[in-house]
Amino acid sequence: MQRYFVEPENITDSYVLVTGEDVKHMTKVMRMETGSHIICLDNQGKQVLCQISEMTQNEVQADILETLDNYNELPVSVAVAQSLIKGDKLDLVIQKGTEFGAAAFYLFAADRSVVKWDGKKVQKKVDRLKKIAKEAAEQSGRLYIPSIYYVPSWKEVLQQTKNYSTSVLFYEEDAKTQSHGGLKDVLQSSPESIMAVIGPEGGVSEKEVNDLKREGIKNISLGPRILRSESASLYFLACLSYQFELLR
Amino acid sequence: MQRYFVEPENITDSYVLVTGEDVKHMTKVMRMETGSHIICLDNQGKQVLCQISEMTQNEVQADILETLDNYNELPVSVAVAQSLIKGDKLDLVIQKGTEFGAAAFYLFAADRSVVKWDGKKVQKKVDRLKKIAKEAAEQSGRLYIPSIYYVPSWKEVLQQTKNYSTSVLFYEEDAKTQSHGGLKDVLQSSPESIMAVIGPEGGVSEKEVNDLKREGIKNISLGPRILRSESASLYFLACLSYQFELLR
Repeated sequence: MQRYFVEPENITDSYVLVTGEDVKHMTKVMRMETGSHIICLDNQGKQVLCQISEMTQNEVQADILETLDNYNELPVSVAVAQSLIKGDKLDLVIQKGTEFGAAAFYLFAADRSVVKWDGKKVQKKVDRLKKIAKEAAEQSGRLYIPSIYYVPSWKEVLQQTKNYSTSVLFYEEDAKTQSHGGLKDVLQSSPESIMAVIGPEGGVSEKEVNDLKREGIKNISLGPRILRSESASLYFLACLSYQFELLR
Repeated sequence: MQRYFVEPENITDSYVLVTGEDVKHMTKVMRMETGSHIICLDNQGKQVLCQISEMTQNEVQADILETLDNYNELPVSVAVAQSLIKGDKLDLVIQKGTEFGAAAFYLFAADRSVVKWDGKKVQKKVDRLKKIAKEAAEQSGRLYIPSIYYVPSWKEVLQQTKNYSTSVLFYEEDAKTQSHGGLKDVLQSSPESIMAVIGPEGGVSEKEVNDLKREGIKNISLGPRILRSESASLYFLACLSYQFELLR
């Protein structure tokens, strides 16, 4: 069934109001009619099954039939601190990372990021990625849309790691060593929250590795094969889901 | 270091001959010169460190310095039987699936595949995907390029599953149930080889589910969130790598 995130104030006790682009999606793409069922979410944990009662060009009203209580969020809050990489690859990280359960993305220009974001365009770029995250959250049945932040300085990235009980750096060089136990150790330590720092195509710089080390953040390996920057978070999130959702 | 798969007959005891498009990549893209180091592989398990000794427009000759023996293939042979999906999504499955360690891909038109392949174009399409797999195998440090097959009939897909000690179907509906232990049970049974059957955007048909059931192939869940068709194999391969390469 089709799912839509709406503004919290648009969900009352008895009905939901859908506005904006979702109306077009409901009418033009899905060809819904009065009587069609949808699921609406407020991105604050509320999830209701509804039946459309009124449709205009700009607004859809739907009666609430039932409050749903299926919970499918990862049991650990995971943030991906992703270095800026080329546009379509960043889209992939956001879309698939949302499907795989990430709670937040912090985007930053790493020393070796070929892509840099012009200050004036940051808001537009973040808004575009937020839309991708919203759609992926709706499609994959998430209760929450991941947050997306642009972090303008490396110092602030380091600062952000302190908001997570564990932070790790995935370092390509580690794929070449024989020691791949780091991720298991981190996940089996049952962290409350994790931030994963991921370098750009050319990898993180020595300075960045050392800065993270000084904050007590370990390099860990994502297995014996060398993963592209845009693949690292997906591999990591899938392992995390397997450990916490499937192995239990 | 840059890696290139070459024809087995182009690796002698003392030198390697690189021909074809890789020569362009070495000269134009990587701007290599006589004396540059490369790694060459024969896609049969041999891996040699070389130094370029001669370059012409069509051919590069390199002296073998050392035979390498790092092994980074998944300890289980995994095949992905992927329903046809839209072009760029199929490219993603091949590229990322190769990075994540798949040994083979079987492509087939499922009942609900919107995309069908015109018989005349099959070879061209498969060749294009083989090139993506080769590049991803080189980039990720694989010893082998995954095989890619187009399977023209559903009956033959069922037949192929018999070549694997375990086969599973990932069925979207299972994401909605509370039982997510199937993948763990399969992986912890230490299968020798696994084939994963993955439906198209609209999911597998009831007939396909029943046909697989008759062959003793179970539906299993890939966790509580609904994954897109092109994401399923990536999630699965990452879990498999975690179980067999990181948890040991």
